[in-house]
Amino acid sequence: MLEADIKVYRGAHVESTHVVHVAVVDAAGKLLYAHGNPDRPTFPRSSLKPLQAVPVVETGAADAFGFRPEHLALCCASHNGEPLQRERVLEMLAKAGLEERHLKCGTHVPKDAESWRKLVREGKELTPVYSNCSGKHAGMLATAVHMKEDVGTYHRLEHPVQQRILQVVSRFCAVPAERIETGVDGCGVPVHLLPLRAIALGFARLAAPDAAGTDAAAVRRITGAMTAHPDMVAGARRLDTDLMRAYRGRLVSKAGAEAVQCIGDLERGIGIAVKVEDGGTRALDAAAMSVLRQLGIGGEDIFAELKSYAEPVVENMHGEPVGRIEAAFRLAPVNR
Amino acid sequence: MLEADIKVYRGAHVESTHVVHVAVVDAAGKLLYAHGNPDRPTFPRSSLKPLQAVPVVETGAADAFGFRPEHLALCCASHNGEPLQRERVLEMLAKAGLEERHLKCGTHVPKDAESWRKLVREGKELTPVYSNCSGKHAGMLATAVHMKEDVGTYHRLEHPVQQRILQVVSRFCAVPAERIETGVDGCGVPVHLLPLRAIALGFARLAAPDAAGTDAAAVRRITGAMTAHPDMVAGARRLDTDLMRAYRGRLVSKAGAEAVQCIGDLERGIGIAVKVEDGGTRALDAAAMSVLRQLGIGGEDIFAELKSYAEPVVENMHGEPVGRIEAAFRLAPVNR
Repeated sequence: MLEADIKVYRGAHVESTHVVHVAVVDAAGKLLYAHGNPDRPTFPRSSLKPLQAVPVVETGAADAFGFRPEHLALCCASHNGEPLQRERVLEMLAKAGLEERHLKCGTHVPKDAESWRKLVREGKELTPVYSNCSGKHAGMLATAVHMKEDVGTYHRLEHPVQQRILQVVSRFCAVPAERIETGVDGCGVPVHLLPLRAIALGFARLAAPDAAGTDAAAVRRITGAMTAHPDMVAGARRLDTDLMRAYRGRLVSKAGAEAVQCIGDLERGIGIAVKVEDGGTRALDAAAMSVLRQLGIGGEDIFAELKSYAEPVVENMHGEPVGRIEAAFRLAPVNR
Repeated sequence: MLEADIKVYRGAHVESTHVVHVAVVDAAGKLLYAHGNPDRPTFPRSSLKPLQAVPVVETGAADAFGFRPEHLALCCASHNGEPLQRERVLEMLAKAGLEERHLKCGTHVPKDAESWRKLVREGKELTPVYSNCSGKHAGMLATAVHMKEDVGTYHRLEHPVQQRILQVVSRFCAVPAERIETGVDGCGVPVHLLPLRAIALGFARLAAPDAAGTDAAAVRRITGAMTAHPDMVAGARRLDTDLMRAYRGRLVSKAGAEAVQCIGDLERGIGIAVKVEDGGTRALDAAAMSVLRQLGIGGEDIFAELKSYAEPVVENMHGEPVGRIEAAFRLAPVNR
């Protein structure tokens, strides 16, 4: 039997395996639990959207344009492109006096298959609002309009919109801004390379906003929006949405591309960051659920409700079960 | 810098990595080169389709129903669901006196996006012929009809169709049939668990059909069909098709789900099997191309032609390059 963090079974046999890294930290940055390499340099990708949303509140843009909590939740979203999600993003743009054409996120086939089919049936083409990042971009644009900055280049690293975000990331993750290297995300904006434990720290500070001594009001609005409107953050059959729903305000949760999952536990004030080494997203839900269970976060009723994420079934083209995904790694407590 | 077999870069930084296993064997079963674990128990999945096609020839079904080489190529195919591919599969069924409803492969959204859009535009539903496995299933059905066996249960392990295939797999891969464990493939038929080097041996024997002292005529027809009609084996922008095209009859190539790639070199009479540990298919093309280059199979003109497979570019939603995939592993010669 192969030793592996995540095992993908076909029938009785392990077909493929995944390696997982985990860091669990408190809001002071103390590493509490780890697995694999908690210092692994990692692009958090979309899991950092709640931090990218902080300037939307702190610049005053959210209030100036009358963004409601569901709009703030969309700033933090990798949404499915469901009709209501798209409608709310277009609302945000309208409130800021902009149009869909201002979005620089590009587009892609949305996870909401029915929205995609409808578009094709009607002979229409994909537009940027279908991008899972359109809410984040609408938020970025709103801050640019509010601060009277150029709206055509808001996605570039040197633009004030991205520089404000860099400062937030630096502050929350406790890494000097000049030491944060960047790449370009799928939607064209900068992504930040950070040690996994620094990403977890960012979520610990989302979970325990007073500990950092800064940004607390903005953080409370953002995490409050996400937990009040989990349906805006991801959508149907998505871990982030169903996790925040099941934990009823206790957890704030956000996945990122290349298999990153970040969770903040508002009850304990800790942050969790998970990275699947190979970027395989299918391993991520089981990995994240295993971390929650090992940390004793949540009761059996919640784990029963979320079983399809904790123990995913591999199906064939007939929808018949032919295998399963199992998380087999064990977190180690850290004393340092 | 992380040491890794396959590195996925975002900008200048490694974002994710993949582990790769490789076995290179001759037709006598001698392991010539290896990387990782050449004995790794592996489900070859669709990479074994050329062996699954052997009974289509050897039972006489192919001749009885007048299958042309492109039909035989489709028996070995994981096709894109392109219009000509679907048309030819329906032809096979008609030649055997059957209809599309007899296919037990289930269905899925085809890789050929335009075929999918057309279906949706016309308000139609996916049917089994769109499944990438429909040619293989049509071949299996044809043998059942020809042998006067039940056509409703041909996908089950105990059916003579699958038992003949099990014997072929056992013979080519040199593993006793009673020691071959099985699972259920995505399309509902049995898949065979084999050491990676045994899978490579199967391809060595496809490449050097006389060495095995059996099945040589059938093998020559099958590999001849695949190399003469590589467009039927996979389709547009697929490694199997473009590789067989570029090598002009020298290589027979077939990928399988969960990131398996098998290649037979008809010139040297050797077989190659590659498995990406985590099943991540995006790592597979670069891994396979690296093996070919390290073995000195093919000239610089071919590697230039296939550069998009050897050095895949990671793009963002605007189609801009934001990263790349690099194969960094080194095959080791084996003396045993």
